[in-house]
Amino acid sequence: MKEQARQARAENRVAGLVTTMGALHRGHLALIDRAKQDCSPVIASIFVNPKQFGPNEDFSKYPRAFDSDREKLEQAGVDSLFAPEEPEMYPLSFSTYVNVEGLSDRLEGRSRPGHFRGVATVVMKLLQIVQPSFAYFGRKDAQQSRIITQMARDLDVHTEIVVCPIEREPDGLALSSRNAYLNTEERKAATVLHRALEAARSELAAGVRDALQLQAVLHGTLGAERLARVDYAEIVDAESFEPVVRVNKPCYVLLAVFIGKTRLIDNLQVAPREPGSDELLFHF
Amino acid sequence: MKEQARQARAENRVAGLVTTMGALHRGHLALIDRAKQDCSPVIASIFVNPKQFGPNEDFSKYPRAFDSDREKLEQAGVDSLFAPEEPEMYPLSFSTYVNVEGLSDRLEGRSRPGHFRGVATVVMKLLQIVQPSFAYFGRKDAQQSRIITQMARDLDVHTEIVVCPIEREPDGLALSSRNAYLNTEERKAATVLHRALEAARSELAAGVRDALQLQAVLHGTLGAERLARVDYAEIVDAESFEPVVRVNKPCYVLLAVFIGKTRLIDNLQVAPREPGSDELLFHF
Repeated sequence: MKEQARQARAENRVAGLVTTMGALHRGHLALIDRAKQDCSPVIASIFVNPKQFGPNEDFSKYPRAFDSDREKLEQAGVDSLFAPEEPEMYPLSFSTYVNVEGLSDRLEGRSRPGHFRGVATVVMKLLQIVQPSFAYFGRKDAQQSRIITQMARDLDVHTEIVVCPIEREPDGLALSSRNAYLNTEERKAATVLHRALEAARSELAAGVRDALQLQAVLHGTLGAERLARVDYAEIVDAESFEPVVRVNKPCYVLLAVFIGKTRLIDNLQVAPREPGSDELLFHF
Repeated sequence: MKEQARQARAENRVAGLVTTMGALHRGHLALIDRAKQDCSPVIASIFVNPKQFGPNEDFSKYPRAFDSDREKLEQAGVDSLFAPEEPEMYPLSFSTYVNVEGLSDRLEGRSRPGHFRGVATVVMKLLQIVQPSFAYFGRKDAQQSRIITQMARDLDVHTEIVVCPIEREPDGLALSSRNAYLNTEERKAATVLHRALEAARSELAAGVRDALQLQAVLHGTLGAERLARVDYAEIVDAESFEPVVRVNKPCYVLLAVFIGKTRLIDNLQVAPREPGSDELLFHF
């Protein structure tokens, strides 16, 4: 892969990278479509990164579907698939970590200690190996996208990080490889995340700006779903990911909710139409 | 600098980087000579990196000599000088750090908490900005060279790290920008580091392999110098920088000694002529 990257750079080609942990769904394929608009070659990576899973998380049972993934990538027109083995990525002597301080400690980082250190480290490695001009991430993992953007800026990586829209099922459920864990009943219950975000949007559209009031609406919707257990439901500043008091600047409404044993996340992006404007734009 | 780096890569040139904190001496110039043998263009950076100084260290009084440095680099045939200002390297929002765990906690790292995190972070940034094929570091900072090599390997940086010999004054004192702090009497006393290493080499050449016995010899020489106060004097494994019991593999004899208020480091590289051989090679 490094040799191929060197070659592509020597030919002044614009490489695009889509990093994945496999178990590919339409969300990943949308990233690849976007990459193909901007780049050639397009490289996809599949690597279930052990360093971003906590000791009690789902690393061992994380869905793996290499053969069908490879087929999907081929059909999507990916030029190269990079699928390293764990000892290639993390030999025994491995000891270097990249950490985005502050941003990594909140929300997902508080619920999953060490998670973002693992994410930042593996993404930095993949950016170095592939040397892409562009790398594409999904906004479903809003905090992750923010952290990777910060890391690339802070460490002067010659790669532009592109954050792409969330892909959803027709009933609103955000696509995620972890949706595969849901049984039929849980799958129905899982729409509660999108319904809660929709309720918040509705309040915001009606003029509510107070974060506590919006949080109450989120908890109201989520609490009515018997199979749901809220990990967090927060309205945060889109840059700092610190909680806001009022929604009068770019924000995220962020949810992390257990449906049965499956932990799902989702978010709604909210921003004034222009700085200072009271009219809000929403991106589910 | 980034644009120039992109240009050099687009032309498939082999760029070489020598990172410095300025206050240039013959040690730095030897690195540049070496870079010029392998690379074109050769880029030198000057940046006194605040993140590698502790709160009670000498950041503010670290010697700065930009005009004469620039002249020296020009005379040495450097193609580009990269001398960023602090807010360019570390804007207010800066929050990403690179840390080589384990190696960074020992010896220099124990005496200077956070030092190697600052070094790894700034070197990673400089490698990303300049994108060199080769980067040159002096073996005087043996632990630093080892950490940077480990970082580049772990994070898959497309740069080969080259560690170059120590340059010394005729009386054996290793060249260092901090030698400028020494008054006449201290300058004389400072040769005690090289004398201690020489005493250790002499014992090793006579067949002594026991690390405690060698340490006693180091402390004997250093203790006889009234102006010297030992921070550490250790014999460590050349890979792990863990203390060894016997010198029967590649090792460093490492010294950190205060001469008055000035902290100096030096080392002797020791290795069996070939694996398993009892005959040792020495590099001062």
